[in-house]
Amino acid sequence: MAQLNHNFNSVKKRNHAEKLKETLYLKIAKIIEEQIQSDTLRLGDKLPSIRSAQKLYNVSINTAKQAYLELESRSLIESRPKSGYYVSKTSQRKLALPTVAKISSTEKEKTPEDLIDKVFGTIAKSDFTQFALGIPGKNFLPLAKLNKSLINTVRRRNDGGTAYEPVQGNEHLLREVAKWSLVLEGKITEDDLVITSGAMNAIYNALMAVTKPGDSVAVESPVYFGFLQAIQLLGLKAVEIPTHPIFGVDLDALKKVLPNIAACCFVTNFNNPLGFQMPDENKKELVRLITEYNVPLIEDDIYGNLFFGAERPKPCKFYDEAGLVLWSGSVSKTLAPGYRVGWIAPGKFKDKIIRQKLVQTVCNPSLYSDVIADFLEHGRYDHHLRTFRNKLYANYLQIQRAVEAYFPDNTKISQPKGGFMLWLELDKRICTEDLYDVAGNQKINFAPGRMFSQYNQYNNCMRLNYALEWTDRVENDLEKLGKLIKNSI
Amino acid sequence: MAQLNHNFNSVKKRNHAEKLKETLYLKIAKIIEEQIQSDTLRLGDKLPSIRSAQKLYNVSINTAKQAYLELESRSLIESRPKSGYYVSKTSQRKLALPTVAKISSTEKEKTPEDLIDKVFGTIAKSDFTQFALGIPGKNFLPLAKLNKSLINTVRRRNDGGTAYEPVQGNEHLLREVAKWSLVLEGKITEDDLVITSGAMNAIYNALMAVTKPGDSVAVESPVYFGFLQAIQLLGLKAVEIPTHPIFGVDLDALKKVLPNIAACCFVTNFNNPLGFQMPDENKKELVRLITEYNVPLIEDDIYGNLFFGAERPKPCKFYDEAGLVLWSGSVSKTLAPGYRVGWIAPGKFKDKIIRQKLVQTVCNPSLYSDVIADFLEHGRYDHHLRTFRNKLYANYLQIQRAVEAYFPDNTKISQPKGGFMLWLELDKRICTEDLYDVAGNQKINFAPGRMFSQYNQYNNCMRLNYALEWTDRVENDLEKLGKLIKNSI
Repeated sequence: MAQLNHNFNSVKKRNHAEKLKETLYLKIAKIIEEQIQSDTLRLGDKLPSIRSAQKLYNVSINTAKQAYLELESRSLIESRPKSGYYVSKTSQRKLALPTVAKISSTEKEKTPEDLIDKVFGTIAKSDFTQFALGIPGKNFLPLAKLNKSLINTVRRRNDGGTAYEPVQGNEHLLREVAKWSLVLEGKITEDDLVITSGAMNAIYNALMAVTKPGDSVAVESPVYFGFLQAIQLLGLKAVEIPTHPIFGVDLDALKKVLPNIAACCFVTNFNNPLGFQMPDENKKELVRLITEYNVPLIEDDIYGNLFFGAERPKPCKFYDEAGLVLWSGSVSKTLAPGYRVGWIAPGKFKDKIIRQKLVQTVCNPSLYSDVIADFLEHGRYDHHLRTFRNKLYANYLQIQRAVEAYFPDNTKISQPKGGFMLWLELDKRICTEDLYDVAGNQKINFAPGRMFSQYNQYNNCMRLNYALEWTDRVENDLEKLGKLIKNSI
Repeated sequence: MAQLNHNFNSVKKRNHAEKLKETLYLKIAKIIEEQIQSDTLRLGDKLPSIRSAQKLYNVSINTAKQAYLELESRSLIESRPKSGYYVSKTSQRKLALPTVAKISSTEKEKTPEDLIDKVFGTIAKSDFTQFALGIPGKNFLPLAKLNKSLINTVRRRNDGGTAYEPVQGNEHLLREVAKWSLVLEGKITEDDLVITSGAMNAIYNALMAVTKPGDSVAVESPVYFGFLQAIQLLGLKAVEIPTHPIFGVDLDALKKVLPNIAACCFVTNFNNPLGFQMPDENKKELVRLITEYNVPLIEDDIYGNLFFGAERPKPCKFYDEAGLVLWSGSVSKTLAPGYRVGWIAPGKFKDKIIRQKLVQTVCNPSLYSDVIADFLEHGRYDHHLRTFRNKLYANYLQIQRAVEAYFPDNTKISQPKGGFMLWLELDKRICTEDLYDVAGNQKINFAPGRMFSQYNQYNNCMRLNYALEWTDRVENDLEKLGKLIKNSI
């Protein structure tokens, strides 16, 4: 009882301190905002470093950081890694950020399976402008190099890939993924990894390993619909947590449900669909929280290498000491979706994952593993990623400009820090599920917002994939889409 | 109530008629057995056709058939398809058939995971004589042709296999599997099939589609351990049904549990591990039963094309009118284990299977599908199967001879009609789990019987894979194994 009281008091004390810090960082943000509005700080100007700001305002490093993050979240400033903070170009952006949804969890859950099926039904339609799916356009992939590597691999292996691999995975690929995961600064070795049939297979197996039917799983909201489907298939319950378009999942809201959930399942870097990069501070705090409550975190980091900044952001896995973070990646978003090559570093759940994999599929096909290992080993993957990132960033600027030009002025638009998804919130009167059919008649495809929740929400939202070759047709189709939206109001 | 009484009476009547038939066929079998023992019928003599026997003994066709099947089950006669029944060479075989186990289901279930892990741990040890695993030796596979096809496929496809396939599967492969499934006489089309990551993935998904956690599933006993693992992973309960080494699962025993189970999961052709080919009559009756009780049957038919007789046996799927049979196959036992290409014709559960597949892995890698489709389309697979079957039958004769020569006289041995598994029942005092370690020291591998049940049984049994190149070392290793067994008694 004394212990309980002690805990309660320390929580109260912490809450008070946090409230105080909150007021402070908002005050500082307000000062800087006024400097920008009064043109004291101008577009492109460099802000004082966080350390200087700390001294200037006589606050803690964290408070200074939070003030800058707040300004960044409102697109008033932007960080350029290894350089500092600058008054942002996007502070002049025309359109606002999407709002953070209030989750109406009293409603009956219903994953929109029919809608998802309908959208997936157009996966093979080559005459569509494919804004819908999370797949990079063919022109972005190094097909000739992959084919060459594949042919060399077939010739080199004496079994032509007909033999079974070890269940954990192709040893060559395990080694190369471990070596190549520099962002973890040597915190994982090849023995910490398991090869999977793409990241979706990693997520499915991770969920299976850390839950039992009936359990609850915290997800972002809007949430990647594949998570909702996997959660439903495994007899689990999704708990949608309000999610900020810049900071990611609301940690205070998460904390409230943590005692009652079996796992978290988040896309922390270049989130699908919101595009945010969860700030390092939030990642650290997230890992602290899940460790405190002993709740595994399944971290989908498939977009992590598609950063627009100067360096690859850290995943939560980097801060994980307890083996509670199951970190997954793949080459499906960057190199070869159809190869179905992914991996997971499942922390202390590794043996369980390997056993599940044995039962579900014995092992992975070996040739693709060898080809990807080869790509990693000889720097070809890094080379490809550099080019790919530049193209994606150029496309992001294009699509942002096009949406600003063609869509109604009250359109709200996400501010992705990487990846290739743009999230739009349209006028409340627009139903993007209806718009999907109308646009389909004009061979234009997008992902309606309703796909991204188990509740009846995001009906006026849509996700656009911009990893497609920027042609006149793409430009025209965005103009058409904008007109369709304007006509529906 | 009247209806209930009527049903009860008709069941009673049927039971009485069945009992009468039973006595009859055993009497006829007895007469023929005496003729063989008295040398009235000699080795190689042809028996009267079933129609002649029907007239001769004045019984129904079915009773005559059952009499012959009974004699066949005791290895006194053998059927040569499209020719008739002959006094069997194996009626002179030295060793008896394995006994049908009484299932001690009062015992606590425990799948021997550690033992299975240990055996799978040697999967990559190339210095072992691999009698353990159900994988054909590399020398039996058409590696050069597969590689050539793979290289051609890479060159032909304009996406090099980087694009996603439709979730249901590669269209080319679906078409070719449907066309090539001649044994079903046109009863399935390409739209009835779903491509899977090998047959194990098909079985896992089939189990998931037709059950919910807590359900019971009927399996053979001894049972392929992969089934037990999948059942356990999905939170299901296995019900082991006594299984005859010639006829397969005991249909009377099955009938008793059918009202309380959610699915059956059987290997009907060239069973793993027993090697039997369930007679057509039993297959028909099995399908009648599951249809009566509306219980789905998951039919693993991966060995069906490896027949020693004149033609490919029918699967239960052939008799299925209600869409209750989920029929699965793959090329893992015949062509390319590492390709992980399998398929399932899931009857009325197709949509559920496709949805599960989307969530678990999105789709299959495409190149392998194309290569296998190519192999099927141009008759290369049939050509390969002809050669492979001949080699397997020669190996079966070799291993049967070797076991007779080197193993103790009280060894009981199965009589496979196809496939490449031999099941041995040794002296009661032998523990094959202990023997496994001793043999391992001599780089000899086999599958201990304990792997094939959730109960503490088959401890004196072992399964030997004979799809390996018959070298002096294999011969010597069997001799060594025989000596180890003799020394353990």
